[in-house]
Amino acid sequence: MYSFTNDYSEGAHPRILNALLETNLEQAAGYGLDQFTLEAAELIKRKIGRKDVDIHLIPGGTQTNLIAISAFLRPHEAVIAPLTGHVEVHETGAIEATGHKIITKEGIEGKLTPADVKEAVEYHADEHMVKPKLVYISNSTEVGSIYSKAELAALSNVCREHNLLLFMDGARLGSALTSDKNDLTLEEIANLVDAFYIGGTKNGALIGEALVIITESLKEDFRYHIKQKGALLAKGRLLGIQFRELFRDNLFFELAEHANRMAGKIQDALIELGCPLLLHSPSNQLFPIMPNEVIAELAKNYSFEVQRKVDEDRSLIRLVTSWATKESAVEEFIAELSRLM
Amino acid sequence: MYSFTNDYSEGAHPRILNALLETNLEQAAGYGLDQFTLEAAELIKRKIGRKDVDIHLIPGGTQTNLIAISAFLRPHEAVIAPLTGHVEVHETGAIEATGHKIITKEGIEGKLTPADVKEAVEYHADEHMVKPKLVYISNSTEVGSIYSKAELAALSNVCREHNLLLFMDGARLGSALTSDKNDLTLEEIANLVDAFYIGGTKNGALIGEALVIITESLKEDFRYHIKQKGALLAKGRLLGIQFRELFRDNLFFELAEHANRMAGKIQDALIELGCPLLLHSPSNQLFPIMPNEVIAELAKNYSFEVQRKVDEDRSLIRLVTSWATKESAVEEFIAELSRLM
Amino acid sequence: MYSFTNDYSEGAHPRILNALLETNLEQAAGYGLDQFTLEAAELIKRKIGRKDVDIHLIPGGTQTNLIAISAFLRPHEAVIAPLTGHVEVHETGAIEATGHKIITKEGIEGKLTPADVKEAVEYHADEHMVKPKLVYISNSTEVGSIYSKAELAALSNVCREHNLLLFMDGARLGSALTSDKNDLTLEEIANLVDAFYIGGTKNGALIGEALVIITESLKEDFRYHIKQKGALLAKGRLLGIQFRELFRDNLFFELAEHANRMAGKIQDALIELGCPLLLHSPSNQLFPIMPNEVIAELAKNYSFEVQRKVDEDRSLIRLVTSWATKESAVEEFIAELSRLM
Amino acid sequence: MYSFTNDYSEGAHPRILNALLETNLEQAAGYGLDQFTLEAAELIKRKIGRKDVDIHLIPGGTQTNLIAISAFLRPHEAVIAPLTGHVEVHETGAIEATGHKIITKEGIEGKLTPADVKEAVEYHADEHMVKPKLVYISNSTEVGSIYSKAELAALSNVCREHNLLLFMDGARLGSALTSDKNDLTLEEIANLVDAFYIGGTKNGALIGEALVIITESLKEDFRYHIKQKGALLAKGRLLGIQFRELFRDNLFFELAEHANRMAGKIQDALIELGCPLLLHSPSNQLFPIMPNEVIAELAKNYSFEVQRKVDEDRSLIRLVTSWATKESAVEEFIAELSRLM
Repeated sequence: MYSFTNDYSEGAHPRILNALLETNLEQAAGYGLDQFTLEAAELIKRKIGRKDVDIHLIPGGTQTNLIAISAFLRPHEAVIAPLTGHVEVHETGAIEATGHKIITKEGIEGKLTPADVKEAVEYHADEHMVKPKLVYISNSTEVGSIYSKAELAALSNVCREHNLLLFMDGARLGSALTSDKNDLTLEEIANLVDAFYIGGTKNGALIGEALVIITESLKEDFRYHIKQKGALLAKGRLLGIQFRELFRDNLFFELAEHANRMAGKIQDALIELGCPLLLHSPSNQLFPIMPNEVIAELAKNYSFEVQRKVDEDRSLIRLVTSWATKESAVEEFIAELSRLM
Repeated sequence: MYSFTNDYSEGAHPRILNALLETNLEQAAGYGLDQFTLEAAELIKRKIGRKDVDIHLIPGGTQTNLIAISAFLRPHEAVIAPLTGHVEVHETGAIEATGHKIITKEGIEGKLTPADVKEAVEYHADEHMVKPKLVYISNSTEVGSIYSKAELAALSNVCREHNLLLFMDGARLGSALTSDKNDLTLEEIANLVDAFYIGGTKNGALIGEALVIITESLKEDFRYHIKQKGALLAKGRLLGIQFRELFRDNLFFELAEHANRMAGKIQDALIELGCPLLLHSPSNQLFPIMPNEVIAELAKNYSFEVQRKVDEDRSLIRLVTSWATKESAVEEFIAELSRLM
Repeated sequence: MYSFTNDYSEGAHPRILNALLETNLEQAAGYGLDQFTLEAAELIKRKIGRKDVDIHLIPGGTQTNLIAISAFLRPHEAVIAPLTGHVEVHETGAIEATGHKIITKEGIEGKLTPADVKEAVEYHADEHMVKPKLVYISNSTEVGSIYSKAELAALSNVCREHNLLLFMDGARLGSALTSDKNDLTLEEIANLVDAFYIGGTKNGALIGEALVIITESLKEDFRYHIKQKGALLAKGRLLGIQFRELFRDNLFFELAEHANRMAGKIQDALIELGCPLLLHSPSNQLFPIMPNEVIAELAKNYSFEVQRKVDEDRSLIRLVTSWATKESAVEEFIAELSRLM
Repeated sequence: MYSFTNDYSEGAHPRILNALLETNLEQAAGYGLDQFTLEAAELIKRKIGRKDVDIHLIPGGTQTNLIAISAFLRPHEAVIAPLTGHVEVHETGAIEATGHKIITKEGIEGKLTPADVKEAVEYHADEHMVKPKLVYISNSTEVGSIYSKAELAALSNVCREHNLLLFMDGARLGSALTSDKNDLTLEEIANLVDAFYIGGTKNGALIGEALVIITESLKEDFRYHIKQKGALLAKGRLLGIQFRELFRDNLFFELAEHANRMAGKIQDALIELGCPLLLHSPSNQLFPIMPNEVIAELAKNYSFEVQRKVDEDRSLIRLVTSWATKESAVEEFIAELSRLM
């Protein structure tokens, strides 16, 4: 049984484990004030090309979303998100649990449009409704698509026009940035959004997301919020050592690039086999629509998510590759697909 | 510079890192449903001697406190805690941020008494005040003391009498259970409280606390709460592998016993040198009161917390040992103390 | 200028003011424990025909919704509501501010269907999503429609099947119960839902909603929640005296019946004039679609809400009548309509 | 049976009821945008002597506290209050339910001192603890004392020095301002605090507190918070008409002055009879310590709160007078006291 279920089925990249081993008995300060975390932050800033940003390492994605959003908003302010946004769909109401409503808009292929944002703002006219204040997007999105530079710039413009914050969930940012279709850099993202994060968990780390706060007014007292929500690890070194390793050179990008390449191979095969796709994915998540018997056969040797029935005979499945996906497994999977379809 | 600042200055016990390495490329289910976590839960149940308890592995202590307490209480219900309780003092209002008031009582040496609990219940008489519902204690406490069997049984009785839940923060439970003065077993604790946790972070793990829920009515839907608060790790294996290693044999207890023994050596020396102590500590935290010049001298080679001034000339400091404290460092520290005092 | 903007443009029915005057200097207990409130609760129970329900008088509707829902739900549980539901649209995120997500479904004419509920339950499959627990409906709804006995029974069945609570916002319950089309009694409602309220503010009182809790498990400690949310009036007598007056005889129903009759007259005229309606309203809110010039002309002498553009030439407006609407004003308005259309 | 239990045992001053009657059928805008509320706000501004403040009329005191505090603070910020503060003691955790911790200090006679505030600020040193941000005081306090101009100025200074907001609960502000011992004016209060409120409920209104926001940064979007917490009355006129009447001339002050005078008569008698007092009260609440037999005798004809046992033989009781307290009842009560003591 080989898993294409997600991008967190294995442990960490060996270099990361090795770094944990090598540093293990060095004494370090607690709560993210250790030498490793400080160095990791410097390395990330260098990759972004800006010194005037704050970096916070946080164990997980849901946690980063809820801490950032609840720290950034006043109680009456709300989030605008696409219907497929992770905060809306798969976080057990984490944002609402901090008191904030999420306003959903349809979006296109998992991406919010400037028109979506404008509509949400115009609809919420007075104090009988929440006040939209933060636009939440993911890159790559929950359905595998990515934002182009033009798309992100347009969203950024509409946000600034309406005094909205733009926040990017980057749980799979590595996959977005190393996509063939990508034309954005970390520096450009930092210039267009108010805060974003760089996901480690889904790109080779054991845990960890690096939140980047760009806008000055959002920086104040941020560590209080991390601590209050239980995310300030006593051994913050665990996060620091991992991100130091990922950003010491290009490891972070190499891992994501591998995942994309593996997905690309499968997607090419699916297209060649005439298998319909929810969308042509530029990243490490694929959403093919397959006959139920094919799915049943595949499930004998592979695990993956069956997302929903499309019609009587076919269902939508999700295939995910990662830094750890073996090329040989991909080739066998393609061979199996060819036999079945 | 050697640190006696806390019990989380190093990484993890080498056996734990080794276990992470060995299992690294095995694929596993996400979100704590992996084989390692399931096995760890079984091992912990065996140590407790009960099969009818639920085990949840959660990254950190503040997180475990806030998730458990907010899952267990209705909005109008409150916590009773000692003035020195971690939830009251050092969690940035994490409990209040979930909506619940903490009622504090003086306690004795960091421990709540049945009289404290009764007083709190009697004072909160009607719907103009919160309703006390959960008693929070730590073992070992924030000042190093531990609960005897008789003390815990008495607290348990008063809680059952007044329909209160009894919750034990076990961030340093290892240190309590392996203390010379301890007469409690894991099984007895499980029989006396409604929920408690077994701390990994401060006893040799990178991160992780094992929450044990005993009372049936508190178990329902608990994983929803872990997820909502951002604590359900995608790679839950990270927690499972560590606790499996800690409880596969007696490693958990051996690590704590070492920490206690190291603290004991320092305490014996302090007593011999006539140094006053906040209390005679049975665990791995010591609170000596020292002349300021001695503190200044010590600080040249050792790091530790200076907690507060006691009078013009003396201050209270905290010395903490851990699973990783080197016996040679302890001996050098004692020698230094002897020179200075 | 005459207002058809809402059903709370005037003060209270004169009998209510008179009751306030007559009792003014009688001393009474505070916080809803006064003789007037106790008597009002008895009178309401008698009208419902059940002694085993709890009655709480609460100043406003948003408040009643947020107190009831936050008292009834655990943190991970969510509300299912129609897209047009007041809690979703016009309460500034009051429910989310207590930590709970609202799952919206399209509904039909402002009413939820059993299929909506089933879909919501089936979609929310595991702990990565909130757990649907309470179904929120309004009667009459925000678009003027009312639930038939068969519709409410069907919803009640699907709720009991899926272990969901059924909660009815009755801010305009008087209007529903006295509608020509209504076939429900207060007693039948009490048998089908877990809790509901009887709106005073929009039916002749200055302020006040009477929350009726039927299901035993929802009753415990409810007054704590009223107090915690700031809704336990020191002079609870203000609510008690008003509801005592409304339910001492049939005043409550007479007032609502008048409002319905006034709306009916306008609706009959609109139909006769060929004016399209969003729906044929059985209650005191009408939603005609009118040419913009007609709206502009009407606005010279009447105030009302213009809800939205329907096309280039026409808009949807809302006309609301109340216990205080003068029949002569209605007649003049109809005459004006006839001139304009 | 005559009640000295509190200052809200009767309805409203007859002039207020009369104003409700006279305006009853005038149509008015909803939600506090009516002509009466606008006029009331102007009248209050005139009494304060400042045009640059925002006035919001809110039904009750607990509600005003929780709305203001939750609107003013970010999630990690906390309140400093005296141990006897209403928010700490008698609001069922309303502030914590909005997510904020209350830090309590002993105070003197129910009043916070600058030293209390400094201590609280100094103790809360870093992000492991909440950040003190708002100082809550009541005037008159919960034990009947009042702040002098010098005391309030000193508190105001320490707050500005430490970047803290100063908030005054004025549920009994009338009583404070009309006390013999008072040397503060509304204008001076407005210059020294960031926000305060003027209590109507305990001074002759049916319900209503007038919140005054002075500091510019606290004003933005405040109506959203009133609505979200359920306190924006549909018939906001109910509040507007009452405050218009109270501040149209000196009614507000005359009512409070009467209450003080009645309390003063009782206090003089108590002193003459040698009855010990918790403190010499300058306002309308008295806290005498009486023999239990005397209390039992008094309780046959008078109702009042017995607060707590002082020793075996004596208890502390609370006697409260109001705008409605009859001078004849006071005289009879004094005569009874003379017989008994």
